[in-house]
Amino acid sequence: MHSNDIVSITPPDQALVPALQAKIDGKTKPPGSLGRLEALALQLGQVQNTLTPKLSKPHVLVCAGDHGAARAGVSAYPQDVTWQMVENFLAGGAAINVLARQAGMTLTVVDAGVNHDFGSRPGLVDAKVAPGTANYLEGPAMSAAQRDSALAHGARIAAQLAAEGCNVLGFGEMGIGNTASASLITHCLTGATLATCIGRGTGLDDAGMERKRTLLAQAMARYTGSRDDALAVLAQFGGFEIVMLAGAMLAAAGRRMLLLIDGFIVTAALLAAAKISPAILDYCVFAHRSDEAGHAVQLDYLRAQPLLQFGLRLGEGTGAALAYPLVAAAAAFLEEMASFESAGVSNKS
Amino acid sequence: MHSNDIVSITPPDQALVPALQAKIDGKTKPPGSLGRLEALALQLGQVQNTLTPKLSKPHVLVCAGDHGAARAGVSAYPQDVTWQMVENFLAGGAAINVLARQAGMTLTVVDAGVNHDFGSRPGLVDAKVAPGTANYLEGPAMSAAQRDSALAHGARIAAQLAAEGCNVLGFGEMGIGNTASASLITHCLTGATLATCIGRGTGLDDAGMERKRTLLAQAMARYTGSRDDALAVLAQFGGFEIVMLAGAMLAAAGRRMLLLIDGFIVTAALLAAAKISPAILDYCVFAHRSDEAGHAVQLDYLRAQPLLQFGLRLGEGTGAALAYPLVAAAAAFLEEMASFESAGVSNKS
Repeated sequence: MHSNDIVSITPPDQALVPALQAKIDGKTKPPGSLGRLEALALQLGQVQNTLTPKLSKPHVLVCAGDHGAARAGVSAYPQDVTWQMVENFLAGGAAINVLARQAGMTLTVVDAGVNHDFGSRPGLVDAKVAPGTANYLEGPAMSAAQRDSALAHGARIAAQLAAEGCNVLGFGEMGIGNTASASLITHCLTGATLATCIGRGTGLDDAGMERKRTLLAQAMARYTGSRDDALAVLAQFGGFEIVMLAGAMLAAAGRRMLLLIDGFIVTAALLAAAKISPAILDYCVFAHRSDEAGHAVQLDYLRAQPLLQFGLRLGEGTGAALAYPLVAAAAAFLEEMASFESAGVSNKS
Repeated sequence: MHSNDIVSITPPDQALVPALQAKIDGKTKPPGSLGRLEALALQLGQVQNTLTPKLSKPHVLVCAGDHGAARAGVSAYPQDVTWQMVENFLAGGAAINVLARQAGMTLTVVDAGVNHDFGSRPGLVDAKVAPGTANYLEGPAMSAAQRDSALAHGARIAAQLAAEGCNVLGFGEMGIGNTASASLITHCLTGATLATCIGRGTGLDDAGMERKRTLLAQAMARYTGSRDDALAVLAQFGGFEIVMLAGAMLAAAGRRMLLLIDGFIVTAALLAAAKISPAILDYCVFAHRSDEAGHAVQLDYLRAQPLLQFGLRLGEGTGAALAYPLVAAAAAFLEEMASFESAGVSNKS
């Protein structure tokens, strides 16, 4: 993998931690009483390497792609829903449009590999690697060259957003069949049993779940390569949208952006990115604990504590948008709250 | 208790539920995939009795008061911090100022009974019942007339906000010693053991906790009246700010406002309000699960599922302000998201 836009990720310097903590503790409140907001403020200061972090031009990046395996029946919805939902994004009517607007975030929609010709469309970034992946039941979902192209596209998009002044980036996705792809990636990269990595996706019934389990076991039986090599695993089972997200995450963390990690599919992309560059995790805020079964496996593996537990299982980056105001609140208290000294309030006796 | 501003609370009509649920299920997402946001949207539609609920002029109402028992040593902070923090609210430097601003909520600060002469001050509602309550270790914290005055003040303030077009109201408080008062009220009204209702408040050490336990046991030993009569319990142990909040809650729910319930002290006020009028609970959204020990007792008793678990233990209504964007997101998705039909998206196969 190589892309000029993927720069190495430096772990945040610990030197600033005491000064950040002192600033937080000097605010007019009992020490620790803002709970996780205080931890978020500390992380943000570390990520930006400053006592006065600021959030700028928050974005949600939604990558969409189709999956060759979808036609084998791993989803409750027909494949056409991928492009129809992209149209819904462009028209402003999907959940992520509403929640991003509500949170004051700008939405960037990317065609990473949808099986549909959108033509040139305002508001849609054309980064189509191919019109859908190959069927991983029969062979690799994509070639190494396609994988590298997807990574490079993602990195380029994140680098562009950073160049425009964005320093906080939520990640989302759309792709019928992509919970199945994320299950395979999660199974390979965490070592958890395949069964614990498989969930109902958009709402499979029991028969559908049984079919999904059987198909994914077939896919794993076919694959004899390394399960620990993130790049190999991405090419075998990845959707283009998942690989592109991984590339975007690596480039974003390399530029010290704060990453808002959504649910199961986005976290599968992060698992791959973190295998490639473990320091990325210091730049991540986990937005929510999804109801999709395999998300718990991922969160345990990453020792992640999401901000929200809201029973979400929609994707699109909706959890990231919903969690963003909490991150913004952390930045605001650090910047705007008075200190005991400045406010003339007596401290603990 | 009587106040012209407290009107009876009608349980929301169930008739609208099927139509609201159909509207939610018709949105372009798998059914149920927005999790708690969907439940919030349903509740909001019921509270406002409409398929098109809207949030208008969101406010946080913060009531402040002093406690006679504070001088006996139930808090880690000196009593002067109450008025100093009110000054901090008026200057815009406290956590609730920052978080309310961030959430787009207007802050209303009320002197319910602070032991300090503020004079006439822009931004401060003067509803002072007395300069602090009497010490409940020796006798009732307030007279029946003072309690009724506090309830009426609270009801008047909520009625005024409703008249100005506010239909969503968060509640907060400030008062050195008021976790102790809330512990006694919670013990009486839930029947839970006193020990489970007592926490570290603003940060008592072990010796301070021991003193608080001993003092509160003494207060209970003195009181021989009913523990189930909310009005009697409020007069015995209430702070003026707690009683005023209860009055405001009753009046607000009577006007079909949505109530955002903060942490331990605000929930003590709600326990009293709910004894008086149980239907109030249908109008409540529980913002967060506080780290203050007794909050879990209250939430269990009310069978409440808060939106956030953030380790907050600050009060001031900070949890309510932090949770408001989640409620606003629920209203927004119900109003703004496209339906499968309007967006031309295929539904589940």
